[in-house]
Order: sequence, then C-alpha cells, then structure tokens
Amino acid sequence: MSIITLTTDYGLKDYFVGALKGKILSEYSEASIIDISHDIDPFNTVEASYIIGASYASFPKGTVHLIGVDLESNKENQHIVMQWNDHYFIAADNGILSMLSQKIVPQKMVSINIHDRLHNEATDIDVFIKVACHIAKGGLMNVIGKEINSIKQVTDLQATIALDSNSLKGNVIYIDHFGNVVTNISKKYFIEVAKGRPYEIVLKTKNIKTILPNYSAIASSDKFPIKYYEGEKLAIFNEAGFLEIAIFRGNPSKVGSANSLLGLNYRDIITIVFR
Amino acid sequence: MSIITLTTDYGLKDYFVGALKGKILSEYSEASIIDISHDIDPFNTVEASYIIGASYASFPKGTVHLIGVDLESNKENQHIVMQWNDHYFIAADNGILSMLSQKIVPQKMVSINIHDRLHNEATDIDVFIKVACHIAKGGLMNVIGKEINSIKQVTDLQATIALDSNSLKGNVIYIDHFGNVVTNISKKYFIEVAKGRPYEIVLKTKNIKTILPNYSAIASSDKFPIKYYEGEKLAIFNEAGFLEIAIFRGNPSKVGSANSLLGLNYRDIITIVFR
Amino acid sequence: MSIITLTTDYGLKDYFVGALKGKILSEYSEASIIDISHDIDPFNTVEASYIIGASYASFPKGTVHLIGVDLESNKENQHIVMQWNDHYFIAADNGILSMLSQKIVPQKMVSINIHDRLHNEATDIDVFIKVACHIAKGGLMNVIGKEINSIKQVTDLQATIALDSNSLKGNVIYIDHFGNVVTNISKKYFIEVAKGRPYEIVLKTKNIKTILPNYSAIASSDKFPIKYYEGEKLAIFNEAGFLEIAIFRGNPSKVGSANSLLGLNYRDIITIVFR
Repeated sequence: MSIITLTTDYGLKDYFVGALKGKILSEYSEASIIDISHDIDPFNTVEASYIIGASYASFPKGTVHLIGVDLESNKENQHIVMQWNDHYFIAADNGILSMLSQKIVPQKMVSINIHDRLHNEATDIDVFIKVACHIAKGGLMNVIGKEINSIKQVTDLQATIALDSNSLKGNVIYIDHFGNVVTNISKKYFIEVAKGRPYEIVLKTKNIKTILPNYSAIASSDKFPIKYYEGEKLAIFNEAGFLEIAIFRGNPSKVGSANSLLGLNYRDIITIVFR
Repeated sequence: MSIITLTTDYGLKDYFVGALKGKILSEYSEASIIDISHDIDPFNTVEASYIIGASYASFPKGTVHLIGVDLESNKENQHIVMQWNDHYFIAADNGILSMLSQKIVPQKMVSINIHDRLHNEATDIDVFIKVACHIAKGGLMNVIGKEINSIKQVTDLQATIALDSNSLKGNVIYIDHFGNVVTNISKKYFIEVAKGRPYEIVLKTKNIKTILPNYSAIASSDKFPIKYYEGEKLAIFNEAGFLEIAIFRGNPSKVGSANSLLGLNYRDIITIVFR
Repeated sequence: MSIITLTTDYGLKDYFVGALKGKILSEYSEASIIDISHDIDPFNTVEASYIIGASYASFPKGTVHLIGVDLESNKENQHIVMQWNDHYFIAADNGILSMLSQKIVPQKMVSINIHDRLHNEATDIDVFIKVACHIAKGGLMNVIGKEINSIKQVTDLQATIALDSNSLKGNVIYIDHFGNVVTNISKKYFIEVAKGRPYEIVLKTKNIKTILPNYSAIASSDKFPIKYYEGEKLAIFNEAGFLEIAIFRGNPSKVGSANSLLGLNYRDIITIVFR
C-alpha cells in the first residue's frame, strides 16, 4: 500500500477534492489517500511550500505528495516530479519545490512529458493523478518525464542577516488555525547567526527576549495555575523548525491571536536584534 | 472493495460525518468511504444535485453515492435508490435525483421499504447507511425496495431559450470556493442553440464575447507574463460541462471573485444573446 | 483492521491533521483512521467531551479514540487512557473524560508513562500516537501506563434540579452546524425529574410546551406543505440524547438559526418549569 498525500487550494466545499480521490482510486484502487490541506490560500505558493515542508517527513519514505496549487501548465510553469529526501513531490514548477529543497539537493527531477499520452479532455490535475499513481505503484520517474537538473528558483521571502551581523530579518510566511504567526526564520539559521549572543525579537508591543522550548514553558512559576498565563505572548521554534510568535492558548474568535493582537500579517517583516 | 461516497449538508464541525462513517464501518468494515462534500448549503437540493452530477463520473462504475441533504422522510419525500449510468444514488425524492437524471433515463429505481426492518431508534440516515452497505456489498436493489417508474420532477431553475431563438437564459446554480459562478447552461445546450452564431454573455460590466477552452487561455499575448492577467474576467465551460464566469486567479479574500466583483449570486439570471 | 478516530481543535487549514495521520500510518500502516471533528473550539473541553460522547458508540467496540484538545502535558494535566463501554479513549486529564464517563464506571484507566521511552524531540501528540497504535494493534494498557483509580472531576456545567423539584436548569454546551442549540439536559434526567408532569421550556420568545420525537413532527397538520413550517422553533432530544432547541430547516446564513434567532449562546442557562 502506497500513500498519496494531497495539498491543494481547492477548499472542501466544492466537489474537486472528492473527484480527485475518485480519479485516483479509479486508476489505482489500493492507494491510501491522505489529505494534508485543501485550504491553502488560493495560488499562494509560499504557503503551499511551508505546509508540505512541515508535514512530508511525518509520512513513510516513498510517499507521493501531490501538490495542486497554481498547477495550470502554461508558458511559464512546466509540471515536474522531484525525488527529495526519499519522498516524491509532484507540482508545477512555480517555486513551491525550489523553496522546499533550498538546503538539500534533490535526488532526481523530471519534467513530466506524458501530456500527449492522455485522453483529449485531460486536465492538468489528470496529469498529476496519472503520475502520482504511476510512482505510488513503484513506477520509474523516467517513464513519465525527462530528467532535468534545475528548476525555477524563487528568492522572494527569505530570512536575511544585516551587513553588520547584528540583526536578522525574516517574514511572516504563515498564520495558523490558532492565529499563531510563523516566520521564515529557521532554528538552524538563527543558531548560526546568534552565536550564543543575547537577542530580542522586536514587536510593536513589548519585545520578546526568550524563545521557549514549548508553549507550556510560559508557565514559569509554580505559584499560579496554567490558566493564569492564557493570553500571554511567546515565541518558540515550532515543530516545523521555524520561529513562531504565539499567544498562549490563543483563540482567534475570543481572546484574540498573535495575528490580531500583535498586528502581524502575511509577508510582514520580523526583526531579531543581537547584542 | 466497494466505494461509498458521501455528500451532505452536515458540515465538518459536528460529529455527524464521523458518526456516519463509524456506522458504515460497523456495518461493512471493508467499505472505502470518500467524502465528496459536507458543505452543501443546508437543504439546498439544487446545489447537491450539481455537486453530485459534477463528480460521480470520477469514481469507478458501481460506486454507491449516499446523498444526505434534505433527507428526512416525510409525507412528501420517500427514500429512493436510483441506478443510473452504472452508478447507484441514495437520496430522498426531493428533486436532487430528478435534476441529475434529466437527460438520461435511469436503469432502475426503487422506493426503499426497509424502514420497518430496522431497530426502533433508527433514523433516516441509518436507513441510508443500511442500503448503501447492502448495495456496496453487491446486494440487489429489489431486496431493499419496491421498483418505481417515476420520481418527483423539479422544473425550477432550468436554462431556457427565447421564443425567437435569439437569446438563452440560465441561472447561477453554484458559487465555488474561488468565487467563480457556475450556471445551469450546459455546453451541449449552448452548442445546440448557438448553431455557430456569434454571441455575447451579458454582464453588468463589459460583456464577454468568447468562451475560452481553459482559464490560462486568457493570457492571449506572449508579450506579458501570466501575472498580468490576474483579475480579468472570463467565461469557460467547466469540467462539469457548465458555463462558468470566473475571475482569472480570483481570490475571494483578496482581489475579489466573479461572485463579488460582478455581483452575481445564487439564482441570478445570466443571459446570452446571439446575432 | 482497527479503527483510530481523531477529535482535535487543530482545524483543517494547517498541516497538523495530515502530519498526525502520516505519523499513525508510519507506526501502524493498517490503521483505519476516521476524523470525528477537527473544529473543536480551541481548548474547549466541554465541547470535545460532548462531541466524543455523541459519536463514539457509532463505531465498533474496541475502537481507539484519540482526543487532541488541550493535550499539552503540564503540571496539572497528565496523559491518560480510559477503557470505557468497550472503547478506548486517549486524552489529557483535563475533564474531557470525566465529563464523558459521569454515569458509567470506566473498565480501566492508566496514566501514560512512556514519555521517557520516546525520542528526544517527541511531542505530546507523538505520545498519543504511540499509545493509540499500541492499543489499536491489540496491546495491553498496562504496557504503556500505570493503573489509576480516579481522574480529575469537573463539575462545571451540569444540569441541576431546583430545591422544590419544580424546575430544571441546564446550559447550552454546543451550537451545531445548523445553529441548533444543544443543552446538557439529557432525556434520561428529564424523564426522572418530570415524572410525567406538564412542562414549559422557558425562552425569551414564546415558551415551548412539547418536546417533539423528531424535526419533521413540527409539521403537525396535513393541510400545509412541509415548507410552511420552515423557520418555526422546536425542541427535540437529539440523537446524542440531549435536549436541543432548533429552528426547523434553519440555515444560519439565511433565515437564521436557534442560536441567532433565540439569542442562545454557549454556556447560557436554559430552564424547564413543571406544573
């Protein structure tokens, strides 16, 4: 049994996700299909890349990840399959996979070339389905594409260090269900730059001077119940390895969230200064 | 392994969908259950019919489609199973299946009559589950119902041609996740009526004179990048075969959608004039 | 094939639910994973308890229910497994399971003690996954925990009877997808207290004097079509066995719902008076 994961901006109201699964099962009835997310912000390749990067490693090696975001084949975006860290990723060459694979060289990449072999009415997603089932069944990448050595590089939204090495700037790349704000500052990059120096995460309200090991660490004193700390802001490196600004037990519809309370939105700059 | 698809207006917040799946697996542990949509507008039979009609053919023949929308059995609505195009559909006789099967005669229809054979507390959905599992296991329709020759016809919301054949009127029957507006004007009906004449889709803003083969075709010139065309309105026949008015790469929460930008809402009339 | 159900407040936009499933399948590839709800109001243990209580019995005996709401292990909340009514429940000891098991004594409870046996980076949900897979595979509870005899009792939000036995007070504990309002007054408790006396459910608008056997029973007269009754308020004991105030065929975005029309919100008091 091979797993095929789905990450799309289709939403769950329409029939698209159901039809996608029906087509996969029609092609490969033993496929185990798992939804990662269908609520990617429409056409948002940064968000798609973050979501797939944060989740792929939770699946067994050999899993096929179908990414249906901004996938229409056109003069700019060819369809590709990338074997990377022993997983397979199928996407349009729109930056999603280049952002994902920045630090580690892919094992193999092909430009999909089976479009002419499908029926006349076949859509872009039909091509992805055919390829996903082929690979999930153990088929070779060369059968469905032509090997390529490079994909489109996207340099938008990257964490950068100041010339004097005394500060680090990143961006908000994702706002999660709890209104917590995820940045593109990775734990690895932060440690490299910080070199053990004290730091402050600059916020409109009071700065944060400590990145906690986990949410509950905010309850620093035994004198108070956990409830006492609800609504306090904090910073952690999240499970995906990125700096996250959160409100302890935030609830967007009630007490508010990091996103609403701290005025942090998608693409906003986050600065960390060192001393 | 037989597939049972689910289309309901239950939403995903409540426990209903989970309980429904638990009951199906209790009855038939090998069932492969696929969600089509659980976000049908409550009691909206037109929307349910569109969604199931647009998606059923993506599944293998023999798939059982359970439709939990306006399903309470009452003095007006009996429960029925329809075998149509080699698929099975279980629904209340509230118009969903008559709208679906307008053009092609069903292979067989039964009025479900097992209500008395279930336990006392059995609800309408319990009846549907029993029937779905029976058919998914390969059981005969006659065992769970009495053959019928007709179902309730619903004539609301149909595309119509003007007396002089010079215009066509349809309605908005669905607004999708991207805010694109789907009408009840099918490609087949349009071609029959148009007879090759030039046409205009009448909109409050500038009319549309060409129905494109796909979204990307809006990028008509090689001079500009794809991004240049974002936000332009266009018309296509969608994968379900119906005329759709869309905004190229529309995002309801940002640039706006066909629904919001063109002021087109559920049931609104769309007119195509011929010359 | 063993079933593992998931009930969380993770939402469906983020990658958390997908990653959770990936980790379960990595640990136990034959698991059958069913979502109950991922839209529990963040950290709302009352809602989580209601949802799991209303749905668990729809699954086969032996099903493992993983409850990821307010699950962070901290000085107040240990992680527990409860065997109850032949099902298994994994949760933090935050009241969810004590509210669930009020009326029936659990068969067995253990405090999970495998935290030290997992890898360094293991999170709370990783512990739950390990335990869920262990039990779904048929493993013993004692292998992953230490037997306990009691869990934290939560007495918040319970239906109570007046000193003179002439009235009953409950609370709104859940508002469903249709805007219907669910209270913590169970059918069993109501019957015990009412002893056959006439009653009125006190509402800001006209009181309700009859609890109906089902929604459609509102259509009391054959003179009118069902549609005539749309928008009328009614009370029933819902499938979960609790008193529910509903609007017949209510649609929160259109005609309004019990929640909006009757001004009933989470935690509000509902009174039933007897004569």
